[in-house]
Amino acid sequence: MKILDVNNPGFKKEFEEILARGKMDIENVEGIVKGIINEVKEEGNKALFRHIAKFDRWEPKSDNDLEIGKDEMKKAYENLSDELKKALHLAFDRIKAYHEKQLPKSWLDFEKNGTILGQKVTPVDKAGVYVPGGKAFYPSSLLMNVIPAIVAGVEEIVVTTPVIENKPNELLLGALYICGCPKTYKVGGASAIAAMAYGTETIPKVDVITGPGNIFVATAKKLVYGDVNIDMIAGPSEIGIIADESARPNYLAIDLLSQAEHDEMASSILITDSKEVADMTAIEVEKFLKNLEREEIARKSIEERGAIIVTNDIDEAIELMNKIAPEHLEIMTKNPFELLPKIKHAGAIFLGEYTPEPIGDYIAGPNHTLPTGGTAKFYSPLNVEVFMKKSSIISFSKQAIEEMGKECAVLAHTEGLTAHEKSVLERLK
Amino acid sequence: MKILDVNNPGFKKEFEEILARGKMDIENVEGIVKGIINEVKEEGNKALFRHIAKFDRWEPKSDNDLEIGKDEMKKAYENLSDELKKALHLAFDRIKAYHEKQLPKSWLDFEKNGTILGQKVTPVDKAGVYVPGGKAFYPSSLLMNVIPAIVAGVEEIVVTTPVIENKPNELLLGALYICGCPKTYKVGGASAIAAMAYGTETIPKVDVITGPGNIFVATAKKLVYGDVNIDMIAGPSEIGIIADESARPNYLAIDLLSQAEHDEMASSILITDSKEVADMTAIEVEKFLKNLEREEIARKSIEERGAIIVTNDIDEAIELMNKIAPEHLEIMTKNPFELLPKIKHAGAIFLGEYTPEPIGDYIAGPNHTLPTGGTAKFYSPLNVEVFMKKSSIISFSKQAIEEMGKECAVLAHTEGLTAHEKSVLERLK
Repeated sequence: MKILDVNNPGFKKEFEEILARGKMDIENVEGIVKGIINEVKEEGNKALFRHIAKFDRWEPKSDNDLEIGKDEMKKAYENLSDELKKALHLAFDRIKAYHEKQLPKSWLDFEKNGTILGQKVTPVDKAGVYVPGGKAFYPSSLLMNVIPAIVAGVEEIVVTTPVIENKPNELLLGALYICGCPKTYKVGGASAIAAMAYGTETIPKVDVITGPGNIFVATAKKLVYGDVNIDMIAGPSEIGIIADESARPNYLAIDLLSQAEHDEMASSILITDSKEVADMTAIEVEKFLKNLEREEIARKSIEERGAIIVTNDIDEAIELMNKIAPEHLEIMTKNPFELLPKIKHAGAIFLGEYTPEPIGDYIAGPNHTLPTGGTAKFYSPLNVEVFMKKSSIISFSKQAIEEMGKECAVLAHTEGLTAHEKSVLERLK
Repeated sequence: MKILDVNNPGFKKEFEEILARGKMDIENVEGIVKGIINEVKEEGNKALFRHIAKFDRWEPKSDNDLEIGKDEMKKAYENLSDELKKALHLAFDRIKAYHEKQLPKSWLDFEKNGTILGQKVTPVDKAGVYVPGGKAFYPSSLLMNVIPAIVAGVEEIVVTTPVIENKPNELLLGALYICGCPKTYKVGGASAIAAMAYGTETIPKVDVITGPGNIFVATAKKLVYGDVNIDMIAGPSEIGIIADESARPNYLAIDLLSQAEHDEMASSILITDSKEVADMTAIEVEKFLKNLEREEIARKSIEERGAIIVTNDIDEAIELMNKIAPEHLEIMTKNPFELLPKIKHAGAIFLGEYTPEPIGDYIAGPNHTLPTGGTAKFYSPLNVEVFMKKSSIISFSKQAIEEMGKECAVLAHTEGLTAHEKSVLERLK
């Protein structure tokens, strides 16, 4: 794993490469994805059948074939090991409890002249969750996307996922049961996003689409944005760690690798003011790598996109990390909480040596759907408010419009909007 | 103005047309806008100079020419009439006070085993506000976009606006002074959005772009979405009114017209359970229309895109209005607050006869940048949180990871992510 020194003249260029990580080449696939979306818009289920035959290698015979039955989910749940059931229920309960704390409240505010102003919070009617399938299925992703929608109070939650050769993953089925058996349709990729954005004979049009996916899914989400809302456009996973001389190199190493094993495109960046910690961590990384099941992926990611940066002090480490704005940020210093005021941009912040990033992936409670590629500068983690929206509330009394109507009319007049002006003046007659 | 009866067999089709209002044909201009964005990305200011010469009819000679000076703003402010100054300051103060009430707080939550979970709220570093110019300038739009960014605590706020023939609007300059003289650059349209999204030699790259604009601006915002965040993609303005027999037809009529005068594409829809109110309002609309400065625009909008719908009862009116999800919703019934629980989708809700919609455009305090075309089903009004984002906070104690680490490791193992599993197990050794 390469070690970079901030005082090295070449560092600026090396750091710019880190900042440019995770850029997705959406332009490349946009044409294909647009074609898929238009087919689904125009032909509905018929297009889905064709795409499923092509990508998932099975042929639905009727509209009903698209849906996964609740009985299947129940049966699969019952067959899960007790250990796994217990772990999934613990995750479900903790994720639910955390997201309940996020719930915004409607509010009203009153003025002496009788004015009432406020904000009403309402869930969206329908939400769509995309769950990737194919190579692997991550039950944690299903939980992390469906639970916030449940907590928000969304009445209709729809799940779409590709089911290769029409053989649903038993774990997916069991996890769906734990999530209350939302309506689940066997379609994946850009077709699934289009189906949820515009509706088909079988799949309802939703208001918000969330969930991870490959570049085709990400591009489809960007293209349908505006017709529906989406959570974010997410790229490869990443971790940043700020560590001082008190950090344990074996913890740092395995945490860096826990991102690296996700994806060859994943980025794992340690920034420390201790040269010794840097050197020791690089050695530990090599030790762990040799015994990893996913060694090949992790090694490519660590070698090509990983880095250990040695700074002059911790403040400099924080400054660089704020520029990176990592998806996951671990702080492994003597007193991690004292750095919190200076941390500006990160999807999730993991404090102290007993909070490895995987704790946040599964069991802690906060969402693991987080902004990547520096978008933590403006995006938030997936949260209940993605499934809710606000309406302003305005009520003026007679006294209030008498007090402020003139100023309102002056502004409307200034903008040349005289029907606006008259609408106010009509009340002042 | 046409009056529709829900019991009429043709109503379903008529209502579907209302639901399909405000669809923008982004595909049509996407190619042009992509070209403009790429030029700005590749050539920076040089491209801006060319676009300004073409669209705004003046030729910047140097990079400095792009910026509006603070002295100019101050001088223009001093020349505003006292009446207008007072009105603008009242608007500024009330908008600021309302948005301060929206400010979310960071929070922490503690568990007995030493776990700390929470959410940190941080403003974005840089925000960009687009202000349309050309035919008209609306100082209220500047206030409504800049004030939430100020309240959010954004350190650098940038404004862009086209300045035709390099002659800035005096009102714009005065309003900029009231907003604290943000850095303001004379460039408009898709070029301005691209400049703020990617940065040029002069204009800084921002994290979030907000502000209204024509279809070129809306398309540019959609295209840069993901590289920066945006508020929403907004279309033509619209009003929906729910009224019972207690409503005054003259108020209803002028309020419908206050949206119609904005734009030929604007929609004004009254839904009432009183045939008499419907008929009387249509007559009043005609009376007002004849004396409107913007009669031509308002007439076209009212005739082509306006409608009065007569329902069997108020519940049916609410049901239809929730399907419309209007940008502005006025409730003109005997007891408007009692309908509030049933109102699901609207950008802003105006209650009672002394709350005409223009009050919300200028002086009430809530934002007038609102979701249009039915997107109130998933978008919120512009608000301080658009200029802020959240980071999850997770801190596990030794006891906490000892209690829950096993379940976490089970889930990681199930997903085949064994470095994740090892990262937890390493702490349990």
